[in-house]
Amino acid sequence: MKWQDVGGMTCSVARSLSLIGDRWTLLVIRNAFLGTRRFDDFHASLGMTRHVLADRLDRLVTAGVLRKEAYQERPTRYEYRLTEMGRDLYPVLLALTGWGDKWLDEGRGAPLVYQHMTCGHMTKPMMVCSECREPVNPREMTVMAGPGLAVNQS
Amino acid sequence: MKWQDVGGMTCSVARSLSLIGDRWTLLVIRNAFLGTRRFDDFHASLGMTRHVLADRLDRLVTAGVLRKEAYQERPTRYEYRLTEMGRDLYPVLLALTGWGDKWLDEGRGAPLVYQHMTCGHMTKPMMVCSECREPVNPREMTVMAGPGLAVNQS
Repeated sequence: MKWQDVGGMTCSVARSLSLIGDRWTLLVIRNAFLGTRRFDDFHASLGMTRHVLADRLDRLVTAGVLRKEAYQERPTRYEYRLTEMGRDLYPVLLALTGWGDKWLDEGRGAPLVYQHMTCGHMTKPMMVCSECREPVNPREMTVMAGPGLAVNQS
Repeated sequence: MKWQDVGGMTCSVARSLSLIGDRWTLLVIRNAFLGTRRFDDFHASLGMTRHVLADRLDRLVTAGVLRKEAYQERPTRYEYRLTEMGRDLYPVLLALTGWGDKWLDEGRGAPLVYQHMTCGHMTKPMMVCSECREPVNPREMTVMAGPGLAVNQS
């Protein structure tokens, strides 16, 4: 299977990765969550080539994860903002953050810490069951065919 | 910045992606969560080349995400199992799944659905605050420097 075909797999992980599984793309999205909006600011903080950055931003706009908005005329300049679809990637970023904080902190602790303004506490976001709100682990989950499963595909 | 340097950024997202941000790697991990353990089974369901698959499995073993265990002698054959570090990636997989289910299901609904055996309910795992257990969204979170932040790095 070629990578281009992965998005066609009947699997939400595969479909998600076909859009955002490129190695730079999630760093672009991370920056968008941290408030970066302008091409030059993405470029300055990520240091990828302008060509690769432009390509990734365009793809994210096409996919609907970012929207491109003019913030100045003559010359027209654009900024990139997360759409609702893009903001919905927050759990993906938090999950990657939590894993890196735990396993890849080189013994120094988390680079960034989070406060949940709604309740006021310092927080370590976690993935829980929507019904009982207890943390989920793979040994306590049963996976079943859902309505979107195409029988003849992996 | 070259991709090889991303793991050196003082950012848990970047560090995580430097290990698992390769486009095929999270599909390998997804399969491990679904019970795949043997090279030929990974190969059959993912369809990537044997060379790429072997490389990704080796990297995951080196990183500590998978461990390689002999399950047969003469000839020795190995299987790949998630370590605790690997199992801790479950929230990453669930977050990607949830996003794909919502935004990329082509109107057909989720390919797979989940039952939380502990409480017995069908569940859509979600990311919540560890303290109040309410769903978190980026507008209600404040990010602050943590103990692991190196001041001179991005």
